[in-house]
Order: sequence, then C-alpha cells, then structure tokens
Amino acid sequence: MNIGLFGYGVVGSAVYNVLNHTPTLMASVVKICIKNPEKQRDIKPGMFTIDRRELLDNPAINVIVEMTDDAEAAFQIVKESLQKGKAVVTANKKMVANHLPELIELQSLYNTPLLYESACCASIPVIRNLEEYYDNDLLHGVEGIINGSTNYILSKIFNENLSYEEALKKAQELGFAESDPSLDVEGHDALNKLCLLLVHAYGVIAHPTVLLCHGIHRLNHIDREVASAQGAQIKLVARAVKQQNGEVAAFVLPQFVKPPHLLHTVRNEYNGVVLTSALADEQFFYGKGAGGFPTASAILADLSALRYDYRYEYKKLLLQEPSVLAADVKLNVYVSFQDWQLLPVDAFEEIHEYYSGKSFHYRKGVVSMKKLKGSDWWKQPGVSLILQEDAILKSPSVIV
Amino acid sequence: MNIGLFGYGVVGSAVYNVLNHTPTLMASVVKICIKNPEKQRDIKPGMFTIDRRELLDNPAINVIVEMTDDAEAAFQIVKESLQKGKAVVTANKKMVANHLPELIELQSLYNTPLLYESACCASIPVIRNLEEYYDNDLLHGVEGIINGSTNYILSKIFNENLSYEEALKKAQELGFAESDPSLDVEGHDALNKLCLLLVHAYGVIAHPTVLLCHGIHRLNHIDREVASAQGAQIKLVARAVKQQNGEVAAFVLPQFVKPPHLLHTVRNEYNGVVLTSALADEQFFYGKGAGGFPTASAILADLSALRYDYRYEYKKLLLQEPSVLAADVKLNVYVSFQDWQLLPVDAFEEIHEYYSGKSFHYRKGVVSMKKLKGSDWWKQPGVSLILQEDAILKSPSVIV
Repeated sequence: MNIGLFGYGVVGSAVYNVLNHTPTLMASVVKICIKNPEKQRDIKPGMFTIDRRELLDNPAINVIVEMTDDAEAAFQIVKESLQKGKAVVTANKKMVANHLPELIELQSLYNTPLLYESACCASIPVIRNLEEYYDNDLLHGVEGIINGSTNYILSKIFNENLSYEEALKKAQELGFAESDPSLDVEGHDALNKLCLLLVHAYGVIAHPTVLLCHGIHRLNHIDREVASAQGAQIKLVARAVKQQNGEVAAFVLPQFVKPPHLLHTVRNEYNGVVLTSALADEQFFYGKGAGGFPTASAILADLSALRYDYRYEYKKLLLQEPSVLAADVKLNVYVSFQDWQLLPVDAFEEIHEYYSGKSFHYRKGVVSMKKLKGSDWWKQPGVSLILQEDAILKSPSVIV
Repeated sequence: MNIGLFGYGVVGSAVYNVLNHTPTLMASVVKICIKNPEKQRDIKPGMFTIDRRELLDNPAINVIVEMTDDAEAAFQIVKESLQKGKAVVTANKKMVANHLPELIELQSLYNTPLLYESACCASIPVIRNLEEYYDNDLLHGVEGIINGSTNYILSKIFNENLSYEEALKKAQELGFAESDPSLDVEGHDALNKLCLLLVHAYGVIAHPTVLLCHGIHRLNHIDREVASAQGAQIKLVARAVKQQNGEVAAFVLPQFVKPPHLLHTVRNEYNGVVLTSALADEQFFYGKGAGGFPTASAILADLSALRYDYRYEYKKLLLQEPSVLAADVKLNVYVSFQDWQLLPVDAFEEIHEYYSGKSFHYRKGVVSMKKLKGSDWWKQPGVSLILQEDAILKSPSVIV
C-alpha cells in the first residue's frame, strides 16, 4: 500500500508514526497534503505538499487516508479518489453522513472500497461489528453514548458538581471540546455518527437533517437535581430502535440513565454502545470515542482490512430488505421550563406527572416525535427536554 | 455454502433455524450428524445421520459446522474436514486449545479456513477484534470474565447472599452449569478460552496444561466477607499481560475486583473482556458468553465471514515476531487458610499483611507464579488463593 495522507494533525501524525514502525502492514506514506506549510512539523519537509493534485494525480498512490475537518472539501477528495480507483479510509463523520448515497454508489461504480470505522466512536469497532455480526440476527436496537465531549461535560456535572459552564471550560482546556462547541453540545456530531450506525445496523439511509436531535446545552441545574433525586444521570444518547411494525425510530436526545443501564457506566470522554438482538441478546462495546490515538487505531485497523480486500457490503441495504425510518413515534419525556408561556398547550399527548414551583416547572408525559420535529418550542432557552429513563418499546408506536 | 452440521443441541438447532430463515446467507444445511437417533427432533428425520462419513465423504458439502462436546472426536472431524478442503466453523474451545499447532498447520497446508469465534465468549467478537484491531497497536493486556457459569455463581453469592452450594445448584437448575461443574468451577473452561485469546492477542501458543489456573471451588464465606469489607467482589479472571521485558504472563485466577474496574460491572452469566493498548487505550466488550442463541449468533457470523473468504491470518504468530510466555512473574495475592499446617513456610516471597483468628487466617503478599505451578498446597481444601485487586504491572517482573 502506497498511502497519501490528507491532514497531519494529532490523528495524522499518529497514523504516520505507527505506519513507519509497523513493517508488517507493508504500507508506506508517499505524500502528505496539508493546509499550512509554515507550521513546524517533526518529519522532513519533502513529505508535505499543499497541492492535493500531487496525491490525487500520483498513480503510485493507491490508498488515500482522509483526516481533514472540512466536510465538503473532504467529499471532493474522496469522490475523486474513488473514481481513480484509490481506496479511501476516512475519519470524517459529517462528510460520510451528508453524502452516504453518493459514497455507496461511488464505491460500487468504481469497485473501490471506502472504510470509515474511525468516524464513529473512534477505536470502538462498532461499524464493522454491525456490518458483520448482526446481519443474520434480528437487531432490536442500538443505543449509544457516541460523543465524548458531551459525556465528559455531563460526567463532570454529575460526578464533580461542576456547572455546565465550568464543565465545558474544562473540556475545552483538555481538548475534549472545540473552541466552538456547538457541533458537540447541540448533538450534531452524535447525529452524524447515528446516520452511520443506521445504514450498517438497518440499511436505513437518513440525512442528518431529517432526524430529531437535541443537545445538552439547554440543561439546567434543576434538571440535574431531578435526575440525582431518582438516582439517575443525564446522558446524551443516540438511539435507533426497531419497532414492532418493522420501522426504525432514530434520534439523538438527552436521557435519564440510571443503574443497571450499561450506559450509566460510561465515564468522562469514553463512548459506549449497546446492541440488543434476538440471538446475541445485549452486547456492550466501550472505549475511547475520540482523540488522536484512538482514532489512529481505528484508521490503522481499516488499512489492515484493505490488505485482505475488505469492504462494506452494506448488507442490510443492498442484500436484504432495508428497514424504513419511522415517520412518528410517541416518546416518553420530561420537559422543564421556566415560564408557562414557553410550553404550547398541545405539546403533550398525555401528561403523567407535573410539578410547578416558583420559577421552575416540569411535566412528564408522552409527546409525538413528528410534532416535535415540526416545532421549535423545545429548542428555546429556558426549556429543557429529556427522554425518560427506561425508554423501551412497549407498543408498536410508543417508546416509553 | 452447503453445510454439514455435527451436533443438533440447543446451538445446533438455533443455527439450523436461522440459516433456514436467512436466504441472504446463501447457505443451506445438507446433513446433520447426531449421536442419538432415537431423540425426538423438530425437523424431518431424513436430515439426520449417525454416520459421520455421510458428511465427510460428501463432496457437495463444503462447510462443516462442528458443535459436539467431545474434544478428541471433534479434532478428528475437523482434521479430516480441513484435509478435504472443507471450511470449518467450531464452537469447541477445548479442542482448539488442545490442538492449536496442528490446527494452524492444517489450515495452512490445505489452504482451508477454520473459524472459532463462538468458542470464546460466544457472541462477543473478541477473537476477530484481537486478530484485526490490535495488530498495529501495542497491546498491554487482555483480562476477562470469560466463563459465564462461575460468574453467575459468584454474582449470586455476592448480590443475593447465597452460599456457594446454593448458587451452584441454582446455576445448574437454570442450565448455566453442567451437572459435573468441575470444568467450569475449577477454571479449565476459562483456561481453554485464554489459550485462544493468547494466540490472537500475542501469537503465543500455550497448551492449557502449562498455565497457572485456579477456580472458585475453594472460596469460603470469610473470603466473601473480606471482599465485601473492601467494597470488592471476587471474580474469576483470565489474564494475559505483556510485561516490560516483552514477555507475556498468562493465568486464570479468582481476583478481588471493585469499582471502577470495568469487570466489576459484569453480571450473572455475562462475559466481559477488557483490552488495554497503547493507541486505543481501554476497550471493553460485554455480552452473553454462553448459551444456545449467543453461541449460534457467533457461528452465523463466522459462516458469514466465510462468504468473503475471511480466515485468521494468525498475524501475531506468523507475520510478526510472536511474544514469549513468561516463565515466572511475581503475583500479589491473598491466601486464606483454616490451619497453619496448610501453608508452607516459604509460600510467600514477601508478606504485606496478615490476619489470624480462631479458625481462619489470611496472608497478603507476593508469591512466585513459577513456584505456585510447581506446588500443590494452594489447591488443598481449606486453602483459598485470590489475586489482589488492582493487579497491574509495576515492574518487569512484579504484577501487583
């Protein structure tokens, strides 16, 4: 394998170094495309270029490893690479989530593989396990903590009593959150990864924009107390659940989680995914879901897989009858709000419990996912929406 | 794939049924070899034979699925199948552990794959992940609860206050333990699985008889109290640890485990494996490690893998410099004993703590693994040996 790297940040340099020290992979880096040639780097300058053509037009390069952060530029690189028969390994979840149909078609058209294990939960091999291990087994559901930044922030809030602002600041200091944290805290990063899980778990192609998604940025300290009072923590959970009618409900929402739920054990910047299936029952994968080395580890595993011509077959999509995305489900939620005017009168289909205090109120009950998606009230400052603990399927249309 | 099944018990019938309902696998069962033709079965009698030759000599059968319980008979079947170019999927851990060198040679000689994911932790894909995901990453250690029966018994003792005898009886009633439970409770089953982990984690081929192994059958209720007093449980842990000198120490021993150790979360009949590596850091795989359906799930995943010509490359053994098994390490242990005469004066290299009561004494300190293997005192009734909690590597030769 003669490799062209796009990007030489934390992940890129880890990949480069390990490749150089692993002769058994029989892979060598030919050229590295970077954005900023002025930056001080630890290897000889001749390895670098700022011209992508030096990689894409080099017939000796047969594998592209794409680790840039611009989704649209990345897509152009990946597209051209596949068209030229260069296998691609990428860590760019947003690019894959936004362009899944084209990427699947390109792979088939040019008979060239694209692997992206590192794009979802970094070192945890969940994509390949979903693709390979559950193709003969009825998969009831996938639920996971798949964003390390938000889990770090929530862990600090619950385990060390920090405020949201303090926890976010600490996460940023440690490099677990970006200086613009909106992609993480508003749930978009988890949502992109959920789209990858959906196609390998169920053959469902869903653009991120069509799925219900809410982050942790609206949580307040009283939600935290409500959670603690019931022995729960709040986690940002991505979920895909097969319902009795065969449709798959999928969303990213904050959720109350308490022991013995396996996701309750997921600490700090770690990720965890629970797969529930008819034969294998409950399986839990846990590990570091972000960071240079864990991501590099998954990229290297993908490179290793290219050696024996591994490729995603998209079995659930192309070889089996793909599942259909549920247009609506009923969700059992908790909504807190600082002012009654923030809550539409028809927000709930059913109310199970409510509380009203001086400057804080909450309701628990059933809402329609479809109605939520069509409205904005739950996104406002002063409103907090959290999925209830034990949100399991009770009827074809109610997740409670 | 035209499949010949050996065995039609819980696992065999689950495999058969799922194959029949999964046309996408493009696999069909041609013939099933059983021991007892009198037994009532749910499919047409024409499918069955008691003559193994009807499977082995049938050129139309190109895949053998071996699910019998006799290790030596199974080896003869697997050997002949590989010699005839029939790919084999087996769940028989004892057979694989006892015959690894021959099985690896047969696969290479006849260019025919043997897959055995189901033989270690059933539904948890740990073999394949070790083989594929950690071949470029420095693996510091593998530790796991890989025997469901003993974990079920220990969970009942610690969580429901049952005695060992009561817990064992309950495990037998529920089918989690055999009527002769010695293979499980004395640690032999975990040891066989550890041998499989060793070759895929480190390229180490070790016959089960050369490794230190102790079960849970000597634990007494005071050990349980000692554990509880420190907030720990006792778990049966299989472990392979790469030491600073590059050698790999491997053994199966009962061990004190307390939070936040990930293995502390492994409940009842579940299995869990923690892989610690330089790049991916700590990864945890959790799921059902035994039972008909979880085992069938792994067998089906292996059959699926045969479709794309997957085979174990034994990368750590054949493509890299394999690790060497450590002849000796120092272990930090707790030993309780009912009578002073049971404990040799030179049992410990170092003593850190001791307690002496009316009819119960214990010592904590350092013992030599090699000396333990060469002696029998710790196997006697009235003696209980448990590895200390936080048994991590502190120096090239001391696991503390």
